[in-house]
This record gives sequence, structure tokens and C-alpha cells, in this order.
Amino acid sequence: MISDSLIKQIEFIKEIDKIKYIQRRTKLFDSDRNENDAEHSWHLAMMAIVLSEYSDVKIDLLKVIKMVLIHDIVEIDAGDTFIYDQNKNHENTEEEMKSAKRIFGILPKKQAAEFMEIWTEFEDGISNEAKFAKSMDRLEPLLQNTSNNGGTWKEFGVKYQTVYEKKKVIKNGSKELWNYAEKLIDDSVEKGILEK
Amino acid sequence: MISDSLIKQIEFIKEIDKIKYIQRRTKLFDSDRNENDAEHSWHLAMMAIVLSEYSDVKIDLLKVIKMVLIHDIVEIDAGDTFIYDQNKNHENTEEEMKSAKRIFGILPKKQAAEFMEIWTEFEDGISNEAKFAKSMDRLEPLLQNTSNNGGTWKEFGVKYQTVYEKKKVIKNGSKELWNYAEKLIDDSVEKGILEK
Ligand SMILES: [Ca+2]
Repeated sequence: MISDSLIKQIEFIKEIDKIKYIQRRTKLFDSDRNENDAEHSWHLAMMAIVLSEYSDVKIDLLKVIKMVLIHDIVEIDAGDTFIYDQNKNHENTEEEMKSAKRIFGILPKKQAAEFMEIWTEFEDGISNEAKFAKSMDRLEPLLQNTSNNGGTWKEFGVKYQTVYEKKKVIKNGSKELWNYAEKLIDDSVEKGILEK
Repeated sequence: MISDSLIKQIEFIKEIDKIKYIQRRTKLFDSDRNENDAEHSWHLAMMAIVLSEYSDVKIDLLKVIKMVLIHDIVEIDAGDTFIYDQNKNHENTEEEMKSAKRIFGILPKKQAAEFMEIWTEFEDGISNEAKFAKSMDRLEPLLQNTSNNGGTWKEFGVKYQTVYEKKKVIKNGSKELWNYAEKLIDDSVEKGILEK
């Protein structure tokens, strides 16, 4: 006898496979191949493991990892919103909430609630774990763009001030990583791959 | 001043991007698109989170997640070894050990040792965490192959007895998941997508 819970969980595991088809604007390192959301989420989790020592405060690493692994699952229905898109609000949209309810709702009730809570906590960006998770989410494309001669900055004409404003979020999770990120941004201006 | 440690860690983060180019034989769910190792690792981590309650014994979920996230990084140098390949040994090869030493060795010394330990523990398959991690690693392609009308079983002429032997490993991590997996295998024979 297969339990009802397990059947739901397997259905969820199949459903989230679709995240592998969601293309981001950013490209892989030294590459012109777009990254997809599964690859992105894997990389953020690895970064969280490798860089957790730089968090300004003690964090629950397991929670951070859960956050980054699930944060883009809502894009299965809602699609990827480009962070520099001026027309569409990148923040927690109604569409994403609807998507979260549908997809996490496939899980058994208690687990669905747990996933919804973790996702909401990430989106709110207030807890220490959410702040560090968001640092990872902002740092990865910065590393990618600098490795790609400006990457999406050049491609979409994004300038220094906008990049700086978006990346400043890194500071909320780690002053040391922000210090590094700021240097990367400044170096990019100097190299001419980011316009000031 | 950027610390020497951070520079090494960023170099590692860039290096492991290459895992996104390592293609597996198995295809995504209901698909003929090959899965890559980053997608696979992300999916195993999600499965570990969703299914941890089925572990026969109490496990350290953070450790399991670390294991599945890093277990295929060695394939950046060593390449993916197909589990049903009769000529090449799927187990811990010299090549993989060399790769682990090179890639984990990019990290600061203490962290490199930690990663090497986690990877070795997974490969050994003895600890409770390694057993559960391996259950996930065997369950995912089983789900994929059944969703793909036999998938790699059909493609490479793999038969029931071989599948059963390889999948039995799931039992070491969870009797309940093995119970489910066994049913999937039997159903596959009945449906004619796995030859007995
Ligand atoms: Ca996103």
C-alpha cells in the first residue's frame, strides 16, 4: 500500500521538473548559454554552503538552502522576471503567489504550509536567513556578468547606478561579501564593461 | 582588502559552473531532453527535503543535502558514468578521486577537507546520510524512466534483473520508498516498458 502522502509528494517531485525549462536572462560563466532556474538554484545552494561563514550573524544554513532551492519554483507558472525589467515589478507578484499556492499545494497539507512559509520568508527578505539567501541570489549574476564582459548589463543597457541599487541587497546578508561585490562593480566600470 | 580565502571560494564557485555541461543519459520527465548534473543535483536535494520523513532512521538532512549537491562535481573532470555501463565500473574510480582532489582543492584547506569528507562518505555509502542520499540518487531516474516509457532501459536494452539489482540500494535508506520503487518496477514490467 502506497500512502496518500507519498503519492502527493511524488506528484510534486514530477511537477517541479518543469523548473528546468525556465530560462534566465543571465548566461553561464564565460558563456553565451542561458542558465535555467534549476541550475541557478543549485548554484545558489552551493554558494550558501561555501560562503556561509561570511554571514554577519549566525544563520540556520539548512533554512537558507531550502530557501534558495525552492525560491524560483513559482516561476514554473509565473515565468522568470528579469531583475532589470522596468515595466514589470520584480517583487512578489500576485501571479507568483497563485503559482506558489498551486504548486506547493500539491504536497501534503502540513508540508505545503511549510514550503509556503519558507518561500514567503524568502520573499519578505526580513529574517537573517532570507537576507543571506538574497545575497546569494544577487551575487551569482554579478559573478556571471563580470565573467561575460558585462553580460546582461551590456545586452540590456543597464547602467552602474541601477546595478549598484540592485546589488546593495548583498550588504544586508554580509558586509564582507558586499565589500567584494562593490569592488567587482567598480572594476567593471574601470574595465568598460559597465557604463557609469 | 579581499581575503585569500574568499578569492579561493569564488574561484571554486566559478569552477563548478562546468557541472551544467555534464549530460546524463536519463531524460527529464515526459521528455527526450537529457538532464544535466546541476539539474539532477538540484532535484535530488529537493527530493531529500520532501521525502526525508521516510528515512528508516533519524538523519541529518543538511548533510544529506550537501552530499547530493556535491556528489557529481567530480564528473567535471571524470565525466558521467552510466550506471548500466558494463565496461566501466560505476563505483569510485581513481579518476573521480583525482577530480575530487583537484576541484575541492581549490577551496581553502579546511573547507576542501570538509568537502572531500562529505563526498567520500557519500561514495562509501555506509552512514545513514549516505544511504538516504543514495536512495534519492536511485529513485530519481526510476521516476524519469517510468515517465518516459522505459527511457534508458529501452534505449540501452537494460532488463528487469539489472534494474532490480541497481535499485535495491533504495532499500538501505528507506523501506517505504523501496516498497514504492518495487511497485514501480513491477508495474513497468506489466506495462511492457521493462523487459523481464
Ligand atoms: Ca528569479
